[in-house]
Amino acid sequence: MMTSSYYFKYERVEDAQQKLLSLAGESMRRVEMLDVRDAIEYVLAEDIHSERDIPQNDIAHFDGYAIRSEDTKLASLKNPLRFKIVKEIKLTEQGSDYEISSGEVIYVPTGCELPQNADAIVPVESVKREGDYIILTRPIAKGFHVIHKGSDIRKNELVLRKGTVILGQHIKVLLDSGIFEVPVYKKPRVVVMPIGSELTNDSNEHHKKLETHSYLISYLIEKNGGIAMQKAPIPDDPILISKEVEEALENYDIIVTIGGASVGKMDFTWNEAKRIRKPRLEIRGIKVHPGRVTSVVLFERPIIMLPGLIQSTLSGTIFILLPLIRFLAGLSPSPLYPKFVGRVKSVIKIPEYKPFKRVRFVKRIESISNEKGKFIDLLRYESFHSSVLLKADGIIIIPENIDEISPNETLTIYGVYGLF
Amino acid sequence: MMTSSYYFKYERVEDAQQKLLSLAGESMRRVEMLDVRDAIEYVLAEDIHSERDIPQNDIAHFDGYAIRSEDTKLASLKNPLRFKIVKEIKLTEQGSDYEISSGEVIYVPTGCELPQNADAIVPVESVKREGDYIILTRPIAKGFHVIHKGSDIRKNELVLRKGTVILGQHIKVLLDSGIFEVPVYKKPRVVVMPIGSELTNDSNEHHKKLETHSYLISYLIEKNGGIAMQKAPIPDDPILISKEVEEALENYDIIVTIGGASVGKMDFTWNEAKRIRKPRLEIRGIKVHPGRVTSVVLFERPIIMLPGLIQSTLSGTIFILLPLIRFLAGLSPSPLYPKFVGRVKSVIKIPEYKPFKRVRFVKRIESISNEKGKFIDLLRYESFHSSVLLKADGIIIIPENIDEISPNETLTIYGVYGLF
Repeated sequence: MMTSSYYFKYERVEDAQQKLLSLAGESMRRVEMLDVRDAIEYVLAEDIHSERDIPQNDIAHFDGYAIRSEDTKLASLKNPLRFKIVKEIKLTEQGSDYEISSGEVIYVPTGCELPQNADAIVPVESVKREGDYIILTRPIAKGFHVIHKGSDIRKNELVLRKGTVILGQHIKVLLDSGIFEVPVYKKPRVVVMPIGSELTNDSNEHHKKLETHSYLISYLIEKNGGIAMQKAPIPDDPILISKEVEEALENYDIIVTIGGASVGKMDFTWNEAKRIRKPRLEIRGIKVHPGRVTSVVLFERPIIMLPGLIQSTLSGTIFILLPLIRFLAGLSPSPLYPKFVGRVKSVIKIPEYKPFKRVRFVKRIESISNEKGKFIDLLRYESFHSSVLLKADGIIIIPENIDEISPNETLTIYGVYGLF
Repeated sequence: MMTSSYYFKYERVEDAQQKLLSLAGESMRRVEMLDVRDAIEYVLAEDIHSERDIPQNDIAHFDGYAIRSEDTKLASLKNPLRFKIVKEIKLTEQGSDYEISSGEVIYVPTGCELPQNADAIVPVESVKREGDYIILTRPIAKGFHVIHKGSDIRKNELVLRKGTVILGQHIKVLLDSGIFEVPVYKKPRVVVMPIGSELTNDSNEHHKKLETHSYLISYLIEKNGGIAMQKAPIPDDPILISKEVEEALENYDIIVTIGGASVGKMDFTWNEAKRIRKPRLEIRGIKVHPGRVTSVVLFERPIIMLPGLIQSTLSGTIFILLPLIRFLAGLSPSPLYPKFVGRVKSVIKIPEYKPFKRVRFVKRIESISNEKGKFIDLLRYESFHSSVLLKADGIIIIPENIDEISPNETLTIYGVYGLF
């Protein structure tokens, strides 16, 4: 009954990622139009150009009198000129509904559009007023204290580039630019299905183990551009597993199982997933340790099977699940970012799985004994330990096919978006 | 009618912050109990100790046979010992419901609690089976392939410190530790009220200006520990302003107004806020430019008045509003973090407001002409420009009472949480 396809065929992580992104990523990525106000933390799928000039008109930079500069050329202390205040405009009024003729001014508040024919502002505090007149004793330059139309953003100017993650300031500027809908990458809907008869999501079921991995994985999904939906644990029953997986394939973009993906006698997920129909892509194990059990079966939509021990679950999440989610959401695929570079404190031996990439959770320490500098401290743990997640500052990735890393060798500690 | 209290009394930013945190912060900060599953991104208000050992019992590290190690002492190739398999436990069963006697073993799957009297595991693949017996040809050490109770986390061990921002891994470990409710700092409810007769929140009202500042400010509030509520713009009408502010004082923890806080003839907010009753604290302007108009009136709850020009609005948000929100939410008060250090490209002159701190939005550039290194480029703009927010990498803060900053002087560029 156990066919050879049941066993692992460990693929290089880069190969697995590349296959999944090109087969699932490219065909599944979607763009949708969203109301700008709902687009927060989505990623722009196109360059955006302003629909209007900002400001939309020439406006006053100060409370003052809108004037025709050419009328003021001859003004001086010896030749004071009088201008009649023909109107006081309120901020709620449109400046362009009014106009001035030669010898006239109109009072405008800061931010008000200039009346017709006006091309400069005389600030209130810099001019003498007599009744309905102002007395000007110097010429006013064209454009004086005027904020010119389009001086902040010009119509048709590129305001935001494709790939921008939309934050608060972008919402503001988009709306200011007259843009009320934007094309964004659709966030994939990801269902998280823990598998294991020993698991429960009810903390009152004391004879079972409370399932908690899905809280962490769902949070990471959300922080990396996905919309996560947590499901109750499914028992180790091939009929139930295949029923739930087939249903999920109808309703979600990505199906994630946790546990039950290895080759033990209670591991049904791989076989049940493959039984559904002929997959477009199979990945049976990846060359990363921990996390080697991570597998993928892709039809139109992928089933991503994560191992059940928490550090393995995370490794599969970091190297396989999150890159796909991030790609679909329009982000750079890797959820890793370099956090700092440090020296290894003590030798790291690689006793097994040498052709595999190795992930270790590590802590940054500022100095050791008499030596100053930044060091990397390997946290001691087993791969089912979760306390390490509370202590780690990040991960190191040890390349394939090396026997050990010597003390003082320099490595990068990577952070993972949403984790540390 | 305009009393002297109407005018600015510019306070040092540090003084204003300190007064607001000690008078409003200390008296308003609240702790609430939340279901762990709802506590994501809240801040722990107390140290948390585990309610249980993790694992809760000695468990098997491999699929194998649970055995009494003392029974195996004499096993060798010359003296193979037979043990009877008296039971196969499933993962859904409790190991401690069963026990072994001398000469017996029980099959247990990985993760299963050890049966009574057992203290070691013989992995399936390392022993010969004959019918209902296993044949042991070597002694098994006590604790062999057993994961000991409490080896991940011990009961009463400190798992999370007060001040921890709760992320996915913390939810997981809290639940694993048997903790279903946690004390967290209550997030303050912050209402954002734009003020100005020229403003609308309806993009179809073309004769008015679409109000957009509140989207940015609300996003920053949420990213810094608050719960934001946006209100429609209030016209420059003292009766409406005082009505809305008084209502808001009943329903929200912090009242934020945007605009209408200066000393112009249409600026009513300061006077209307002060008219409500005698404040516990008044801050009429702060020594930062832009943002100097930022004012506070504190009763039981504060009214924080932000200026209306976007860069001034942001400056007041960064120096006054966010520190209070962050303090109430249990975070370190400053929303600033050092992003990088660079050299100033060209001279920065301080022409006015010399006793004020000065904020400038800047861009980081990697090199100029022939010089390599990191440089700080001042973005050229007016304080009403919002395009600068799309281009800036952060802000520099120029201290009080200096005339200029020379080229090549070294400064820190600060990021603002939620902004850049």
